[in-house]
Amino acid sequence: MKHILHLKCLICGKEYQPDEVTYVCPAHGNEGILDVVYDYGRIAPHISPTSLAANRETSIWRYKPLLPVAPDAPTPPLAVGWTPLYKTDRLASDLGLQHVWVKDDGRNPTASFKDRASAMALVKARGAVSSQQLAVSSEQSPNLPITTASTGNAAAALAGLCASVGQPNVIFVPKSAPEAKVAQLLAFGATVLLVEGTYDDAFELCLQAAAEFGWYNRNTGYNPYMTEGKKTVSYEIAEQLGWQAPDVVFVSVGDGCIIGGVHKGFKDLLALGWIEQMPRLIGVQAAGSNYLAEAWAKGEDVLTKPPIKAETVADSISAGLPRDRIKAMTAVTQTNGAFITVMDEEILAAIPALARGCGVFAEPAGAAAYAGLVKAAREGLVQPADRIVVINTGSGLKDVAAAMKAVQGVGVRPYAIQPTLAAVETVLKPGG
Amino acid sequence: MKHILHLKCLICGKEYQPDEVTYVCPAHGNEGILDVVYDYGRIAPHISPTSLAANRETSIWRYKPLLPVAPDAPTPPLAVGWTPLYKTDRLASDLGLQHVWVKDDGRNPTASFKDRASAMALVKARGAVSSQQLAVSSEQSPNLPITTASTGNAAAALAGLCASVGQPNVIFVPKSAPEAKVAQLLAFGATVLLVEGTYDDAFELCLQAAAEFGWYNRNTGYNPYMTEGKKTVSYEIAEQLGWQAPDVVFVSVGDGCIIGGVHKGFKDLLALGWIEQMPRLIGVQAAGSNYLAEAWAKGEDVLTKPPIKAETVADSISAGLPRDRIKAMTAVTQTNGAFITVMDEEILAAIPALARGCGVFAEPAGAAAYAGLVKAAREGLVQPADRIVVINTGSGLKDVAAAMKAVQGVGVRPYAIQPTLAAVETVLKPGG
Repeated sequence: MKHILHLKCLICGKEYQPDEVTYVCPAHGNEGILDVVYDYGRIAPHISPTSLAANRETSIWRYKPLLPVAPDAPTPPLAVGWTPLYKTDRLASDLGLQHVWVKDDGRNPTASFKDRASAMALVKARGAVSSQQLAVSSEQSPNLPITTASTGNAAAALAGLCASVGQPNVIFVPKSAPEAKVAQLLAFGATVLLVEGTYDDAFELCLQAAAEFGWYNRNTGYNPYMTEGKKTVSYEIAEQLGWQAPDVVFVSVGDGCIIGGVHKGFKDLLALGWIEQMPRLIGVQAAGSNYLAEAWAKGEDVLTKPPIKAETVADSISAGLPRDRIKAMTAVTQTNGAFITVMDEEILAAIPALARGCGVFAEPAGAAAYAGLVKAAREGLVQPADRIVVINTGSGLKDVAAAMKAVQGVGVRPYAIQPTLAAVETVLKPGG
Repeated sequence: MKHILHLKCLICGKEYQPDEVTYVCPAHGNEGILDVVYDYGRIAPHISPTSLAANRETSIWRYKPLLPVAPDAPTPPLAVGWTPLYKTDRLASDLGLQHVWVKDDGRNPTASFKDRASAMALVKARGAVSSQQLAVSSEQSPNLPITTASTGNAAAALAGLCASVGQPNVIFVPKSAPEAKVAQLLAFGATVLLVEGTYDDAFELCLQAAAEFGWYNRNTGYNPYMTEGKKTVSYEIAEQLGWQAPDVVFVSVGDGCIIGGVHKGFKDLLALGWIEQMPRLIGVQAAGSNYLAEAWAKGEDVLTKPPIKAETVADSISAGLPRDRIKAMTAVTQTNGAFITVMDEEILAAIPALARGCGVFAEPAGAAAYAGLVKAAREGLVQPADRIVVINTGSGLKDVAAAMKAVQGVGVRPYAIQPTLAAVETVLKPGG
């Protein structure tokens, strides 16, 4: 692990060796999120665009030398990442643009972007067994559970990845969690704790339990390595574009960990000299969950801005106090990017627009990123010649009820017909 | 298209040139399914295990010279196939076996195996535009729709693939089709006709409409090229196993087109000399939809055996009169295979067993194949040293209601707790 220089607190800048701290800066309690800082000079001899061109590994582990894991760390069998990047000329043309790609992270094993982080959590949690290089303090025995609080994609991702290697895991969910989502976690063999209380109560209890029982804590915006899993999406985008970084990337923002990961990935590539420019990162928030967009527009300090009450159809990006808000804000401000908000109706309308425009069926949080591009194009925030990537963070099969609402919202309906050719002809003729 | 020798009727053996017939043998109406027969001597110079090892295409189109398409035929952007093959030692060990792999075709673009066939339908339908080599009679203008009857995976696959290139498509579904499935088709922009009547009525009307309006007909067990899309799964399995074919393959069977495709793929590889043995193919049917299993056990002729009334929780393999029954029966009998039936409870129990055993979350029809392996192991139909592949044909996200039933069926429940560490400790301690 000599390729890691240190972990750096995002609040006070204090630096720690990986074996000095487990998750957060001791000076700032649960808020002291750490950034993993690499020694790129040590990494460069082990990986390059040329070596990658010959690498047939089709998962995030093709970038192993750039990740905070030992070279011999065993990786889970589920194939995470290396998701398709589609050029979508029809969508681009509809928006008056020339170059739009959609990165479909709904194609991950449990159908969301979160598999990238959960795969990393699994490797970090089990690392101590395989490698003497890893500090025992930051790695756990494989017999102790990995834990997270979530009712959604992060929970499914952790449960699925753990199932692939028989790793115990405990998921804390609020009592109100949808039965269908709980069923998936149970199918994967997770221990599911239905906490009498809110999501915040479940989250708080999860942090306490992890500390008390020595479980590995996968929570986003707390565990510094989740960003390191998520950053792989930027490596893939750059590689799939022939190492010519896009001009703009649109990604939806809830807790802010994904946009933070996207930023980190491009920063790594710039530092290595594999790309020549940092894309502008556009964080798309639901209007009903606009903590970061508001803070950015008003120049508020996210360390002191109080939580808001979040409510949106895009449950995966509903966050009253985004846990990774420092990284998210930095991602936008340092890249000359922006935050954009979209209404729930715009998010829903983006589901069929994206599906029929390029064959990618997205959940609301994924479609939100495209809704953001639609708005940005309308308002002139992107230029016709910009090379633009939109990240879909989850499959539409995650929330079919939203898809039903979406097609009703845009007035698309099936034709009810009698079983005759005449009936077919009638409904399909122009004006039928 | 000189690599195709002819199309051969499965009933009378009559041979046709590809431009002589569009779909079926004229002598046998809708039942005269055709097999595509290749000139392997013409194919061999264009593809080999060595050339494939250097091929970075990660979709079914890596095998283009082995498919019934022109070399320059444009292929859809959605990345179909090249799905993961997972070695699952824990599952194997639970069953007293040594070598079990799961091929996860739930990882396709619309989350089912059917994308392989729909991708082929799309290329065939649009082929006439790009290549003078293709006969106009069997290819349609890109402006005319592609059509199929289905409420399930085939419809979603066709709608999704068509959306990726802006290809019009018309889906015939019975009026009873679940609203959620219709919503997905509408999101993809398909024209959906809700037919007043049964599934059979919808199917019949679809065939009539295709003939009447000149639409391209994608129906399984009718269009001879669907098998050619599906056979790619066997190429992938063999390549992923280093061209050492497995001893046994388990696959669920409804209409029979998938097992027919699996058979065709291995036949191609044997003919080319890339593998040394034909695996035994085990067709797994739901006990409530056991047309082929019954015919096989009793030695009945599938050309004369009347339809049965099919009913099973695994809707994707519910078929009263399997449309591709000749190919399916041939696949089993020619490979010294077998048909196995599994009860709905066994299918449901296989969902969590597979999910927690290897991290693959399957829909009932996909889990049925694993249920078949469980039964076969119990009954000694496979040997401990057999190298066995189980094909999962669809994602569990396609039918979350079945997953809920499945976890309830095996008595797995979440723990309801108060938000205290003491409560966590109580439920998690041994016997808690």
